Amino acid sequence: MENTLDKRLKKLKEEVYISNIELVKKNLVVFTFGNVSGIDRKSGIIAIKPSGVDYDKLTPETMVLVDLEGNKIDSNLNPSSDTKTHIKLYKAFPDIGSVVHTHSRFATSWAQAKKPILCLGTTHADYFYGEIPCTEVISDEQIAKDYEEETGNLIVEAFKNKGIDYHHIKACLVSSHGPFTWGKDPEEAVFISSILEEIAQMNFNSILINPKLENTKKTLIDKHYLRKHGKHAYYGQQ
Amino acid sequence: MENTLDKRLKKLKEEVYISNIELVKKNLVVFTFGNVSGIDRKSGIIAIKPSGVDYDKLTPETMVLVDLEGNKIDSNLNPSSDTKTHIKLYKAFPDIGSVVHTHSRFATSWAQAKKPILCLGTTHADYFYGEIPCTEVISDEQIAKDYEEETGNLIVEAFKNKGIDYHHIKACLVSSHGPFTWGKDPEEAVFISSILEEIAQMNFNSILINPKLENTKKTLIDKHYLRKHGKHAYYGQQ
Amino acid sequence: MENTLDKRLKKLKEEVYISNIELVKKNLVVFTFGNVSGIDRKSGIIAIKPSGVDYDKLTPETMVLVDLEGNKIDSNLNPSSDTKTHIKLYKAFPDIGSVVHTHSRFATSWAQAKKPILCLGTTHADYFYGEIPCTEVISDEQIAKDYEEETGNLIVEAFKNKGIDYHHIKACLVSSHGPFTWGKDPEEAVFISSILEEIAQMNFNSILINPKLENTKKTLIDKHYLRKHGKHAYYGQQ
Amino acid sequence: MENTLDKRLKKLKEEVYISNIELVKKNLVVFTFGNVSGIDRKSGIIAIKPSGVDYDKLTPETMVLVDLEGNKIDSNLNPSSDTKTHIKLYKAFPDIGSVVHTHSRFATSWAQAKKPILCLGTTHADYFYGEIPCTEVISDEQIAKDYEEETGNLIVEAFKNKGIDYHHIKACLVSSHGPFTWGKDPEEAVFISSILEEIAQMNFNSILINPKLENTKKTLIDKHYLRKHGKHAYYGQQ
Repeated sequence: MENTLDKRLKKLKEEVYISNIELVKKNLVVFTFGNVSGIDRKSGIIAIKPSGVDYDKLTPETMVLVDLEGNKIDSNLNPSSDTKTHIKLYKAFPDIGSVVHTHSRFATSWAQAKKPILCLGTTHADYFYGEIPCTEVISDEQIAKDYEEETGNLIVEAFKNKGIDYHHIKACLVSSHGPFTWGKDPEEAVFISSILEEIAQMNFNSILINPKLENTKKTLIDKHYLRKHGKHAYYGQQ
Repeated sequence: MENTLDKRLKKLKEEVYISNIELVKKNLVVFTFGNVSGIDRKSGIIAIKPSGVDYDKLTPETMVLVDLEGNKIDSNLNPSSDTKTHIKLYKAFPDIGSVVHTHSRFATSWAQAKKPILCLGTTHADYFYGEIPCTEVISDEQIAKDYEEETGNLIVEAFKNKGIDYHHIKACLVSSHGPFTWGKDPEEAVFISSILEEIAQMNFNSILINPKLENTKKTLIDKHYLRKHGKHAYYGQQ
Repeated sequence: MENTLDKRLKKLKEEVYISNIELVKKNLVVFTFGNVSGIDRKSGIIAIKPSGVDYDKLTPETMVLVDLEGNKIDSNLNPSSDTKTHIKLYKAFPDIGSVVHTHSRFATSWAQAKKPILCLGTTHADYFYGEIPCTEVISDEQIAKDYEEETGNLIVEAFKNKGIDYHHIKACLVSSHGPFTWGKDPEEAVFISSILEEIAQMNFNSILINPKLENTKKTLIDKHYLRKHGKHAYYGQQ
Repeated sequence: MENTLDKRLKKLKEEVYISNIELVKKNLVVFTFGNVSGIDRKSGIIAIKPSGVDYDKLTPETMVLVDLEGNKIDSNLNPSSDTKTHIKLYKAFPDIGSVVHTHSRFATSWAQAKKPILCLGTTHADYFYGEIPCTEVISDEQIAKDYEEETGNLIVEAFKNKGIDYHHIKACLVSSHGPFTWGKDPEEAVFISSILEEIAQMNFNSILINPKLENTKKTLIDKHYLRKHGKHAYYGQQ
């Protein structure tokens, strides 16, 4: 008889596997540039994509289990090289259940430009409660110390310094690198990656048409975000 | 025996359903970002997409019927959160039979840039008799009062203030939001959304090549619009 | 027994039909925005797409035959509204056997920008022996006189005034409108439309990266064009 | 009994054929604009795509064998018109086993803009150890002397003058022309072409958002390139 933890981890690996495949279907990754992880909060065990394995060779069983110290639990495969970044986010953002990293084209273009994605309209405000921040460029000390962990720190610091609530803006650009997103589960985190790419492309277009654009006013962001989220939401069938 | 109104409404729901699906096929919406409605003018009853339901779960039966005061008639589902905007347009533009709202990529990019789509050529002039206006940004008072209804008012005011005839320009950009289009029936309104997206993309390209472009001269717009529309039209097989 | 002219015209209609469909497959037209014609030079009879008919309703039989004065020969359908432009080109350019008009996205964007497509590299020079000209904007007098015929005149004048040989540059942009291309037969004319769209897109990218670009030097254009065309060609299997 | 050389060449032709087809599948060529070659280093024999043959008519047998002087060995078909450029690279870069030339859209756009592709982020640094150089414009003397061989010389000179190691940057843009890439075998060389196109597009976006961007700092390029390449690599399952 399987114990409950085993069952939960098996389900987690399946969800993480499906969401990694979903990244490909949604054109958010090319080749092996991307990874999804999910966490079982009770045990603190994370399932994550193995490093550098072609997407067509992935199965639920190839997902690698690691603990919050990064120790592998049951696999011969190496976990994603970005595992420590994921762990850092799980530690800093206690309510999230999944992290996604992609090199999706337009979100990455903004990260390379070292610019936040301003909130230019209601498509953005429907899903993100303000601009998507872009971190500082990683310092030479951080690169030398522990590159992947410090990448996580850059995200956490960006949210802390700018007073951003990770519950309401579930995405961050890492300067010169690319986007990370998160959510309550892999499905939501991938969905956020997908919305992020769409608004990244529309905002690219908008600022080329009108380079003077600034963030949409707070009252309009409030209206759209809050009609979909929180206790006064009236969008959908809830 | 079904009465005539029932038959008409059944047919309307089917048309509205088909056109909502058509939005997806034509890549004019991602996820649930878009809605089509149609009206039965005799009874004043509108069929509209339900709010926040995935496109693959829609059927003709899930289309929600509402009257011109926004009261639901026969459904357990909530109508689109944009229903009041649609109603405003049906009241102000008495000859239209359908309204479409999308977040299509390039039209939305122009709305976010708060710029009208100038008439830069004959592709535009074949379908729209002049530039596509962009509304004022919604005021804080309007947001507080009734956001969706006031969105409709912004469109109506833009057409009134600029002296534009809604019969000949069947589209409007709402600042910081996205496009609304209309037509005699859902098929035409979706077609207009599709043409709008195409010209939005070409005009984006054109103004990046040559930022000084202005509207095409009136004589050329007249020629193209009027060879397709009105009593002197000679395009097609009529 | 069919006579020879009938056989030739039947074959011509088939070729013109196939090439009209090819425009759709190559994404060079949306909706009904485009037309291909071909000419039987012996009889001076042209086969052309009917006006405003959906592509999925076209058959070889629906292609309309007209003479060089624009008179219909055997059809109940109206020929393309651009027929007089095609005829003008057949009269001015005696060696061509087909004319194609599209509203393909990037070529049309350049036409709307009222700019020629400079020869910025070897992809261009492999197929066009210099920049693709853009006509003058049509005058009010020309619009009033005979719009479609004068559109043809604009193209002919552009080639004459700039001393361009239509054998070596088989495309022209009409200001505020879109591209026309030609060739020895419908297959070649559609191929040229397709190459034109590709270089229109690459040149758009290149001038955004480097706005100061000018035409590639003559020696490089000569090398590439002449290694593929004319008696010293050494490209391919000839 | 086949001798060993025959077996090796048969296998090489198959690999070169497959990789030429792969270029089409990955949308890196339109029409016949592109070619892949591979070399058997023991014998110095190269297999290369024939010149100007449609991709759907290619088979492994149609690949043309030439020696390092450019002499055809066993074919009635002409080799790619770019054969001498490939040969030049095989001679100058002794460790490579394959060369690829494409006119892929964004890489060609940069070549036409006569600009290197800066290293703007980790997607780039994962595969290329610094910026992708762009050659000088070919001189009139070089065009007159031996155009294709001199194109190879431009690439070799660019690497020599800038002190770039061809093992770590496996791509070069030829000014006003397009990209060449290489690798240990055809599969790798095509993969590099594909990555190059992706970063060419992202960098296009990034410099339009922020025209002041410069190369990413050396420490970050080192980190990403070296975590994937060389003896301290820790990416993947090695």
